[in-house]
Amino acid sequence: MSLIDRLADELARLPGVGRKTALRLTYHLLKAPPEDAGRLADAIMAVSERVRTCARCGNYTEQSTCAICASPRRELSIICVVEEASDINAIERTGEYRGLYHVLGGRLSPLDGIGPAELNITSLLERAAMDGVREVVLATNPSVEGEATALYLHKLISPLGVRVTRIARGLPVGGDLEYADGVTIAEALHGRREL
Amino acid sequence: MSLIDRLADELARLPGVGRKTALRLTYHLLKAPPEDAGRLADAIMAVSERVRTCARCGNYTEQSTCAICASPRRELSIICVVEEASDINAIERTGEYRGLYHVLGGRLSPLDGIGPAELNITSLLERAAMDGVREVVLATNPSVEGEATALYLHKLISPLGVRVTRIARGLPVGGDLEYADGVTIAEALHGRREL
Repeated sequence: MSLIDRLADELARLPGVGRKTALRLTYHLLKAPPEDAGRLADAIMAVSERVRTCARCGNYTEQSTCAICASPRRELSIICVVEEASDINAIERTGEYRGLYHVLGGRLSPLDGIGPAELNITSLLERAAMDGVREVVLATNPSVEGEATALYLHKLISPLGVRVTRIARGLPVGGDLEYADGVTIAEALHGRREL
Repeated sequence: MSLIDRLADELARLPGVGRKTALRLTYHLLKAPPEDAGRLADAIMAVSERVRTCARCGNYTEQSTCAICASPRRELSIICVVEEASDINAIERTGEYRGLYHVLGGRLSPLDGIGPAELNITSLLERAAMDGVREVVLATNPSVEGEATALYLHKLISPLGVRVTRIARGLPVGGDLEYADGVTIAEALHGRREL
């Protein structure tokens, strides 16, 4: 196999990259200055070799503890539970949350063979039981599995005397009532608040 | 800057890859086995370092002469002129062409400062003047610049006593007359043939 085909094959394994896009990217890298290709290859190797997960919360980090867990300015009384470390980025971008995180590493999905033992639940319970923790926000995805996971965690954490909350479901900001699905509209009505 | 941001930045420099896609790919590479990331980085470096252009036709190759120029089974009497080496791949996939190629390295585009001196035209004229060459097929893109380039080459090559042809323009196979642009329909009418 030619080197061009080999690179196109590797690129086509990436999510959302088809055969044509892979070839287009390959030819782009061929025409680009060698430094550009080198920097991309270096960046891939660096991420793969040097990024690991925070020993406490599971966030991506280059140290043993992530920047959020190590920060003296975060509220230690609140823990936000997410499915994947990449979800932390989405929440951090809002700038609206100042607490800590906990990465489950997935969601309950019996059909895929993912039960409680496959997720970072034991460490979550240990953290939730620690002194000073007052609230656990369940920010798993608003999907069937995400909801089931949130319900399961709620049952486990509530007895610890900690407040357990769930992020709100409703119409996305900028969305259109006309095109929203019925379940979302029902949730938006159900979760309505006083103005 | 974090290694994750660095990789996302490098990926976002690729054509057609926006900031969100770059982040999604970055997280994919983080979750993938390290061997996968390593193979991708290796493939990028290999292409960048070891793929060069054929000394004769300008096609991509890992040797000094490309597989097409080196093949004893290609017709030496016909040369197909393309703008970019990546165009060769598109023509080869059809399996309909058995001759040689010549890569211009672009097309005439005065506004971008690309004149005849910036393209591999001298070497094309040398090849077209060689004994045994009977036809030069101009397969530059059917764009304004591609047409201008084809006309320019036609004027240069015709005096050499070589047949100069241009790939046909018309309706793409599987296309729809109703949605075709007027210029394409006009070309299709103009180039009509007996059944």
